[in-house]
Amino acid sequence: MKTLVVMAHPDWHQSNTQTFLKEAVLNMETVYWYDLQSHMEQLNVPLAQQLMKEADRIIFQFPMYWYSAPSSLYSWFEQVLTPGIYNSKLKGKEFGIVVSTGVSEKQYTAGGGEHFTFSEFLKPFQGIALKCQMVYLSPFSISLFDYLSDLEKKQLLINYQQYLTLNRQGSFKAEEQWVINRLKALSKKDMLKDPDHQLMGILQILEENRDDIDDLSDTIAQMSEE
Amino acid sequence: MKTLVVMAHPDWHQSNTQTFLKEAVLNMETVYWYDLQSHMEQLNVPLAQQLMKEADRIIFQFPMYWYSAPSSLYSWFEQVLTPGIYNSKLKGKEFGIVVSTGVSEKQYTAGGGEHFTFSEFLKPFQGIALKCQMVYLSPFSISLFDYLSDLEKKQLLINYQQYLTLNRQGSFKAEEQWVINRLKALSKKDMLKDPDHQLMGILQILEENRDDIDDLSDTIAQMSEE
Repeated sequence: MKTLVVMAHPDWHQSNTQTFLKEAVLNMETVYWYDLQSHMEQLNVPLAQQLMKEADRIIFQFPMYWYSAPSSLYSWFEQVLTPGIYNSKLKGKEFGIVVSTGVSEKQYTAGGGEHFTFSEFLKPFQGIALKCQMVYLSPFSISLFDYLSDLEKKQLLINYQQYLTLNRQGSFKAEEQWVINRLKALSKKDMLKDPDHQLMGILQILEENRDDIDDLSDTIAQMSEE
Repeated sequence: MKTLVVMAHPDWHQSNTQTFLKEAVLNMETVYWYDLQSHMEQLNVPLAQQLMKEADRIIFQFPMYWYSAPSSLYSWFEQVLTPGIYNSKLKGKEFGIVVSTGVSEKQYTAGGGEHFTFSEFLKPFQGIALKCQMVYLSPFSISLFDYLSDLEKKQLLINYQQYLTLNRQGSFKAEEQWVINRLKALSKKDMLKDPDHQLMGILQILEENRDDIDDLSDTIAQMSEE
């Protein structure tokens, strides 16, 4: 599965959130990182459209500005989403949103400081996904990044990577397989800090367990047929 | 009451809807027409902020692009709505939206071609109004302008002028007073095509009736007190 991340931040190098997310995808070969701002001066529309056509999952990633996306993303939509694209070329692809805010997520509710939920504020994006016949994914939100603990940031990194690349089944099996694949990919590149081969040991156990579970499933299926 | 219309259309001279609406405000002295696009090349932020501060009702008028406003309006918000403005200077003012679409209004509903209502798609604007402590008015929508009959266009013109300048009470009295004031203003400027003084006759009857009703109201009030 190929993922395109259209990151729209006017000055992402100054954003702790965006630089963290950029590092999270550095070694993910199936993820294409598209820094929208750097393309806007001379927007190559056919290139942007080609990237969308090649992707299975397209993520729009931005800081929330006035309960919506930065104006640059709207300008990009106006130029890139031509009828030839939205009428047929994106059908069935997945449409995700990674939105960051400087306000606690608890405020985004009736009676809270921001009055409405992310689901409500992001309705225009859901409309775009539907118009393009795409599958709208639950938005992924990051609030108050700078206040997260190191452990919370590590969890965020995994959750973010999964939002970009995990198959949508949402099953335990899919999540387990995702972990196995990530560990394998990192070990191939010698990216894994694992001097005592502990992680590799866990990986082996995971794979053996998975094989056992699959065998058991097959046995059950055969017994049901008999 | 002063009204500011912030009209955001990338090329409004080519829009039948916008040229029609522009003509509708030509003789309305309390309405300031701000053509956003013409200001964007060198945006004068203090001027835009001053216009907002002086207005009692601020209308954002635009064609719906991707279930939202054109990117130019978002760019304007990013520059003009500084904390010094949205924290205190707009409190209590009215926030209106005039949105035009090329799709029938009937499609904006669950099960319709556009899936969601204007109220849902425009939620981010409602969020802005709340953040600025402004009073959010029901959006005014114009669909399929080019298919309207002449009579429908005349009705649209009056409804639009009232959306811009009618006091919010929504009472018959307020609407009647609005008609009296408009007729007077147009007759002062010799704008009224009324060779037989028929309209002026109606105006006189309206005013006399209004005086009679006010007298009756006073009498009833006095009798209640006795």
